[in-house]
Amino acid sequence: MKINEIGEQALIKEIAALTASTADREGVGIGDDAALTRVADGTFVATSKDMLVEGVHFLLPGITAQDLGFKALAVNLSDLAAMGAKPRHAFVALALPAGTECEFVLDFFRGMMELAKSYGIAISGGDLVASPGPLVVSVTVQGEVRREQALLRRGARPGELVCTTGSLGASAAGLALLLQDIPCSDKVRAAALQAHFRPRPRVREGLWLAAGGVVTTAIDISDGLLKDIREIMEINGCGALLYEENIPVHPAARAVAAAAGRSPLDFALHGGEDYELLFTVPENAFDNLARAYTEQFGRPLYTLGRLTGENRLQMVTKSGKWEELVFAGYRHF
Amino acid sequence: MKINEIGEQALIKEIAALTASTADREGVGIGDDAALTRVADGTFVATSKDMLVEGVHFLLPGITAQDLGFKALAVNLSDLAAMGAKPRHAFVALALPAGTECEFVLDFFRGMMELAKSYGIAISGGDLVASPGPLVVSVTVQGEVRREQALLRRGARPGELVCTTGSLGASAAGLALLLQDIPCSDKVRAAALQAHFRPRPRVREGLWLAAGGVVTTAIDISDGLLKDIREIMEINGCGALLYEENIPVHPAARAVAAAAGRSPLDFALHGGEDYELLFTVPENAFDNLARAYTEQFGRPLYTLGRLTGENRLQMVTKSGKWEELVFAGYRHF
Repeated sequence: MKINEIGEQALIKEIAALTASTADREGVGIGDDAALTRVADGTFVATSKDMLVEGVHFLLPGITAQDLGFKALAVNLSDLAAMGAKPRHAFVALALPAGTECEFVLDFFRGMMELAKSYGIAISGGDLVASPGPLVVSVTVQGEVRREQALLRRGARPGELVCTTGSLGASAAGLALLLQDIPCSDKVRAAALQAHFRPRPRVREGLWLAAGGVVTTAIDISDGLLKDIREIMEINGCGALLYEENIPVHPAARAVAAAAGRSPLDFALHGGEDYELLFTVPENAFDNLARAYTEQFGRPLYTLGRLTGENRLQMVTKSGKWEELVFAGYRHF
Repeated sequence: MKINEIGEQALIKEIAALTASTADREGVGIGDDAALTRVADGTFVATSKDMLVEGVHFLLPGITAQDLGFKALAVNLSDLAAMGAKPRHAFVALALPAGTECEFVLDFFRGMMELAKSYGIAISGGDLVASPGPLVVSVTVQGEVRREQALLRRGARPGELVCTTGSLGASAAGLALLLQDIPCSDKVRAAALQAHFRPRPRVREGLWLAAGGVVTTAIDISDGLLKDIREIMEINGCGALLYEENIPVHPAARAVAAAAGRSPLDFALHGGEDYELLFTVPENAFDNLARAYTEQFGRPLYTLGRLTGENRLQMVTKSGKWEELVFAGYRHF
């Protein structure tokens, strides 16, 4: 059977079953944003590893080498942020097509260092190999987290609020600008492209949420809000009810959607690559959390809706109708 | 400038310089077999990350999915072995061409688990993505080592012996059998292909050598003896003098070389992918080390020659001539 027939999640489950015999019982393995592996006296190493392929995850020369380096690190840091881990080290493997300029590789690392410096992350190793095909980037990041503070995907209950650390859809709007000729202001274009090429992982926010001790689950929004929320639903045996009026659509996504005659909500629900944290929290803890968060970061937390006991993902529209939500965004296979 | 003009090592040096500002001063970063990153009270995480590309590092269907999974883990474990680290976790990213069968992916993990089980290694995470080009495999392994026991590439002095944990050339002989029609016995063929497809990383040997405290440097032989020995020379500002009669050529390499009318020494010096450990040790410590090693593992250690104060790599041939040795094996770019 082909992977696109069985589906990525089913295949990953089979791999998890196949490798279960040596799995680390103290830590967290396949199936969360990052793995947790115990090293010493309660300190765990959080590790995340992503792979980005030219023609699938990025286009050249559509993205510059610098932006690619920045983004390749950002998407991995976002996984550590979703564990509440403090990032420490990055490892970078590149498969480079014949004739790649050294300056391209160095620019890639320059862009990566811009982000690495802001968190004191060391680029500590990796591999450079030749590729007869596309450019392939694989980054592994390592961080640290106390086991009891780690933000896992499991741990939510019906009734809890579903929240995000920021507004959604700007990265998808940026991608739309790259793929289509959409007239919009320079300011909107810059904001959307910035969100797409240089996402800011919520590292400090993840650490802060983990330290607070009231967040029950977290995941980063990479594939798209609806796909990532479904992941939380499935792992916790819950459903979710979202309120359309609460979905925080990024202003740039609104502007691009208006100019393109598209729905701004589509960008926010299906777009992906937002790299905001999606998390759940008991309702009675939310107000204090949101107030303290705004004091700390100068930005609000957003409540999108709540988890339910039914196995359904629904939305109450602005006109008061109930709709079933089906993810129509990016599929890996 | 293209990478093949500047050379891989020079490019890696530039990357190391460019990323130096956030480098971990307590640990070991770019430039050794694995990175060492401190986690707690003297325990360090050893991390190695390799990338294997179809058409460059392996051919399909020349190698089976099971062997590919086995080998992808083996080459990374070999890097940890060369640090004297105990392997704990592996992370696996695969870029999969369209239409890849699930069974191929599962067989890959089955092969990997054969090796993982023998060391109790957990497959703890990774990424599956689509590839418009070749299959790409990137494995990251994590292990543990005490900082003061770790086997680094730096630390050797002129006069010390240059040794290996096993004989060389069998993997290169296996590759020759795949590329050419060479008549040889089933037994020789099986041994050479086994060495090529299922190299046994010297994990226990590396741990044992690290615990002994007399080994001054270590590296695994992946690119080829002469290239890897040159790495030790350059880092330590030494030369080396090898004795042809001491080079341990694997019996299968001898047999394949004889059948193909090629030099067995070429397989051993330039072939690569041996995944034996190459290490240095003071002469006065060698006899005890070799005796204890043979007691422990039932196999000998081999002395190939010694480090010198001159910046030259030379060999005394069986006929007593002195030759300059130039690596003529695999170049990444």
